[in-house]
Amino acid sequence: MTSHPLTQIGRARAVIERVAPEINGGRFPIKRTVGEEVMVEADIFVDGHDNLCCLLLHRPAGSKTWTEVPMETVGNDRWHACFHVFTVGRHEYTVAAHVDHFLTWQNDLARRLEAEDIIVALKVGASLVAAAAGRADGSDSRKLKELVVKLGSAATPEAGRIIAQSDSLTMLMAAHGDRLFNTEYDRVLEVVVDIKQARFSTWYELFPRSCLVKDMTHGNFNQVIKRLPDIAAMGFDVLYLPPIHPIGNTFRKGPNNNLVSGPDDTGSPWAIGSAEGGHRAIYSKLGSAKDFRRLVMEARKLGIEVALDIAFQCSPDHPYVTQHPEWFCHRPDGSIQYAENPPKKYQDIYPFDFECEDWKMLWNELKGVVDHWISEGVRIFRVDNPHTKPFHFWEWLINSVKVVHPDTIFLAEAFTRPKVMHRLAKLGFTQSYTYFTWRNTKQELTDYFTELTKDKSREYFLPNLWPNTPDILPEFLQHNGRPGFLLRVALAATLGANYGIYGPAYELMEDKAIELGSEEYLNSEKYQIRNWDLKQLDSLRDFIASLNRIRRENHALQSDWSLRFHVIDNPLMICYSKKLENDILIMVANLDMHNAQSGWIELPLAELDLPFDRPYQAHDLLSDARFWWQGTHNFVRLDPQVSPMHILRLRSRLRSERDIDNFL
Amino acid sequence: MTSHPLTQIGRARAVIERVAPEINGGRFPIKRTVGEEVMVEADIFVDGHDNLCCLLLHRPAGSKTWTEVPMETVGNDRWHACFHVFTVGRHEYTVAAHVDHFLTWQNDLARRLEAEDIIVALKVGASLVAAAAGRADGSDSRKLKELVVKLGSAATPEAGRIIAQSDSLTMLMAAHGDRLFNTEYDRVLEVVVDIKQARFSTWYELFPRSCLVKDMTHGNFNQVIKRLPDIAAMGFDVLYLPPIHPIGNTFRKGPNNNLVSGPDDTGSPWAIGSAEGGHRAIYSKLGSAKDFRRLVMEARKLGIEVALDIAFQCSPDHPYVTQHPEWFCHRPDGSIQYAENPPKKYQDIYPFDFECEDWKMLWNELKGVVDHWISEGVRIFRVDNPHTKPFHFWEWLINSVKVVHPDTIFLAEAFTRPKVMHRLAKLGFTQSYTYFTWRNTKQELTDYFTELTKDKSREYFLPNLWPNTPDILPEFLQHNGRPGFLLRVALAATLGANYGIYGPAYELMEDKAIELGSEEYLNSEKYQIRNWDLKQLDSLRDFIASLNRIRRENHALQSDWSLRFHVIDNPLMICYSKKLENDILIMVANLDMHNAQSGWIELPLAELDLPFDRPYQAHDLLSDARFWWQGTHNFVRLDPQVSPMHILRLRSRLRSERDIDNFL
Repeated sequence: MTSHPLTQIGRARAVIERVAPEINGGRFPIKRTVGEEVMVEADIFVDGHDNLCCLLLHRPAGSKTWTEVPMETVGNDRWHACFHVFTVGRHEYTVAAHVDHFLTWQNDLARRLEAEDIIVALKVGASLVAAAAGRADGSDSRKLKELVVKLGSAATPEAGRIIAQSDSLTMLMAAHGDRLFNTEYDRVLEVVVDIKQARFSTWYELFPRSCLVKDMTHGNFNQVIKRLPDIAAMGFDVLYLPPIHPIGNTFRKGPNNNLVSGPDDTGSPWAIGSAEGGHRAIYSKLGSAKDFRRLVMEARKLGIEVALDIAFQCSPDHPYVTQHPEWFCHRPDGSIQYAENPPKKYQDIYPFDFECEDWKMLWNELKGVVDHWISEGVRIFRVDNPHTKPFHFWEWLINSVKVVHPDTIFLAEAFTRPKVMHRLAKLGFTQSYTYFTWRNTKQELTDYFTELTKDKSREYFLPNLWPNTPDILPEFLQHNGRPGFLLRVALAATLGANYGIYGPAYELMEDKAIELGSEEYLNSEKYQIRNWDLKQLDSLRDFIASLNRIRRENHALQSDWSLRFHVIDNPLMICYSKKLENDILIMVANLDMHNAQSGWIELPLAELDLPFDRPYQAHDLLSDARFWWQGTHNFVRLDPQVSPMHILRLRSRLRSERDIDNFL
Repeated sequence: MTSHPLTQIGRARAVIERVAPEINGGRFPIKRTVGEEVMVEADIFVDGHDNLCCLLLHRPAGSKTWTEVPMETVGNDRWHACFHVFTVGRHEYTVAAHVDHFLTWQNDLARRLEAEDIIVALKVGASLVAAAAGRADGSDSRKLKELVVKLGSAATPEAGRIIAQSDSLTMLMAAHGDRLFNTEYDRVLEVVVDIKQARFSTWYELFPRSCLVKDMTHGNFNQVIKRLPDIAAMGFDVLYLPPIHPIGNTFRKGPNNNLVSGPDDTGSPWAIGSAEGGHRAIYSKLGSAKDFRRLVMEARKLGIEVALDIAFQCSPDHPYVTQHPEWFCHRPDGSIQYAENPPKKYQDIYPFDFECEDWKMLWNELKGVVDHWISEGVRIFRVDNPHTKPFHFWEWLINSVKVVHPDTIFLAEAFTRPKVMHRLAKLGFTQSYTYFTWRNTKQELTDYFTELTKDKSREYFLPNLWPNTPDILPEFLQHNGRPGFLLRVALAATLGANYGIYGPAYELMEDKAIELGSEEYLNSEKYQIRNWDLKQLDSLRDFIASLNRIRRENHALQSDWSLRFHVIDNPLMICYSKKLENDILIMVANLDMHNAQSGWIELPLAELDLPFDRPYQAHDLLSDARFWWQGTHNFVRLDPQVSPMHILRLRSRLRSERDIDNFL
């Protein structure tokens, strides 16, 4: 990195530190999606009073040529500049700086008063320019040489000063200035550039085996294909399927996680592997590999990507168990150790032993599973419990896969401690499940989403919000009826550019838990097939379709960093905005599911580019109502029985009759 | 660092990150003084639910053997442990962690319910213990083998469980557990351990040439020696002298920075070098090298270290100018470039050109200057304007010197931008001048000292507070008379464990600036000799002696990190405390120099170990008054004409008559 000979380090006087963004001292890359900006900042300074030239350097990983962007000072010795990333894959950036003797000379010259002083200074400047002429060639060199003569022969100090400050000289010297004692930041930092869906995606999770019509006992991919137009009409662009592999028989679970299963019970899709095959096989009742490929293709035609579940664990019947017993822990009697969390036992699941002697072969085999599904057309993976497998393993797997397939997306299903979730996001997971599922109050939502969108962790942690999952029927949904379901999906859809629901349980408002105080669904689809009545009259289908249409039509909802909370004088209401250029959306929600609530919101007009002196329109994109608002404070009332939320697009009136001046 | 073979990295499952303290990713050391503690924290976690063994490792730099300290969890995957440093020089620390399979097994065992399960688990445990027995030797191995037998032959599951949880087994397994897949943090961090005076010192700056008695026209070291008992009686332990070298004649400044000097004018001591010699020479009028050595020795007898000024710049008459013209910049006419900040010129000063070809020789020569004065007995240096010389140079100089002389102290006189001051502190300066000189209001003092004592920069930035210097007569001192002088020195002495004054200008309350709006002294000693009347009746001598006595007697004032501000309901008053074990000092100051002010302070009794239910004594160490306080809120009144501050030592009454129980 150091372009000056090491022996010259003593003469490289600029100091560069506190470069941002930088994760764990450069150990991990930051993340962006195609087209996004990377704003780079650094503390840069030098001894004494010399002027600096500071440069942001960036290039696609693998390239040997840096693109240079001049940095600007923002005060307090902080400098910044930005670049945009346009191709998926890795991109590199760093910072360099050197003392700019010409700029220093120019600034000093402007402050000199005595003619004698100026004449001497012009001679000093001429020698700087002459040196630059020697470094340049062609017309630049010629022009610089002319300027040397002009500086030397200026008729008056003032005339010389005008030449010295001229734009032409300044630009030529910027191009050919002396960089002999250049300081380069001692780390090259990286950004992983993902496809746009990494930042903006709308997920629908369903169990294919529950996609059935009359007289069927087990759904299949062909039925899922028939369901696709409806899923597309609801506005989803990712269809996520729980594991589609053969399901084990040994210790198979019955309905409601019963330890005993009957002959007709279908078991949990996460108990992967049977005589039919393992992680590369498809459960025969769901269809063939060909059916699956057709599903992927048909979905893609409708703008939907099929996402698969990566659950690296085995049923006792998985072929690995006999083929590779060395990949598992063994009990003193030689049997394989099942999963357990004493006193609980999960005898239908064998975890891998990632500390086994043969760990390299195990890693390769598991990566092979991902590669297999990529070759079958899948590019989005939802990874089950990644926090129960080693961090090094995921870092290696994801990065190895993305070298070849930089357009893949990995969603980490890690509902666990914050540090663990963050490490998974740093090491390569594209998106992450979040605590949104349990954040309900104004304070909880404000604190959590301020962290997600303003903390420096936003550089690597891309949230994907789920109001429910097959594992989690949150208490809020159990006890708040239809208003609760409306509210939570509306919050997810507007707080997060990435969100998803587990359906049809969501749109049909399934709210029965297995027991009081539990978040487990009664008759969970994890253990049995459910025959959903999609024609149910109170389905939230249309409401969800509206939300997703609004997301597609309003760019402000397609990224997270602009999120901002605003004052509303009612603790049971919440107000926040997202803004992208002219697209300003204000969301106001009533968090009380049992009473209408009203309050006055307070908007920072200047920061939202709204007028102080005339009304502006607040157009509710959900109800299509239009309100004329004025000033910072405006009144809002929401009845949970009618609508959980306003999604207000603000429009400042550009012209009115009054603008036509009748007096001219 | 990595103790497992690199090929096994996939099996080392623990993750270590966010180790603190760590400066610039380990690029710079933290600082401590002898005897102090280093508390090390880290985020440490592992996939799954296994238990971890986390270790803080530390050793003197150069040693190959780590001392291990077990770390404790403090929640949220954060672990900590501490060590103490007892010798000056560099000390190293890092963190390591591994999955503790025995601990995991022990914890799981405690939660198992079924007898059959426990019996299997005991067998698993026995194999872990047997493996440890193989690693141990001597009596440990024998004891472990006995425990294997006991675990295997336990009469009941419950009996086995008791053996498994026994302290003896736990301790033996902690000593001989399996560390095969150990994770070590990828950086070794450093702490520079300094002598105690780096943290707690009291400086007195004086111009030796002004140390004169009747009929003398130029003071000298012998007169300084006569002044020593008085300086010691005032409680100072560092005597800092401005440059003692020959002073240039060319462009010598006259009184009040006059460009013209007369034949009797003495010039500025910072215009270093004449025919008499340069940075290693002593100005003949001050005395000989022998006189200087005697001064150092006599001072040390009184507990005072003599500190010298390192000002790396030359007068035009410095021998370097003719011997090494290549170390300076040249003007087009071949003359040497003087210092300037257009339109200002400093023709009496030639700065070095640190970008010169011969920079290595220049660096070595300047280090030789420091080495010379160390050989003359000096170990404390105040470095003049370090921010106008390259950062690399200082880092190299200080660290090279401290390898041989780890007991040296370098104080950075950099009154400049925050980032620059911080870099100098990081790269090796022991202490730093601060903005205290201009922080006067309650808000300013609270904000600034909260930063200095609570921000992570406290790990490397040791403040040294100066209410005045020969360069700075702050406006506050110009306009607030005796109360102002009393207040500012009292604030310095209690807010900072390191502080200093420039005297006798301070204790004699010299408050005349050269002009309105300037902070330059009128008739500054920088340019002329001043004949101070040390017998002046209103001298602050005794007050300063009291402050310094209180500092010596109260350990709480000898370090900075315990500083804490407390509520007082008067914006013109400030209240803060320092605490070290039982030594609790509460400072209350009136910041209004023209009116008495009163207010109620509010103390956090529990945190200060004060009783809620009975009175405690507040003993003013300045006035010797004793107040009986009770509860959180107490009343304070201060008249600036009487005293600027209470320095209250709080004492909780340990016993009273009432404690003698008459009823037994």
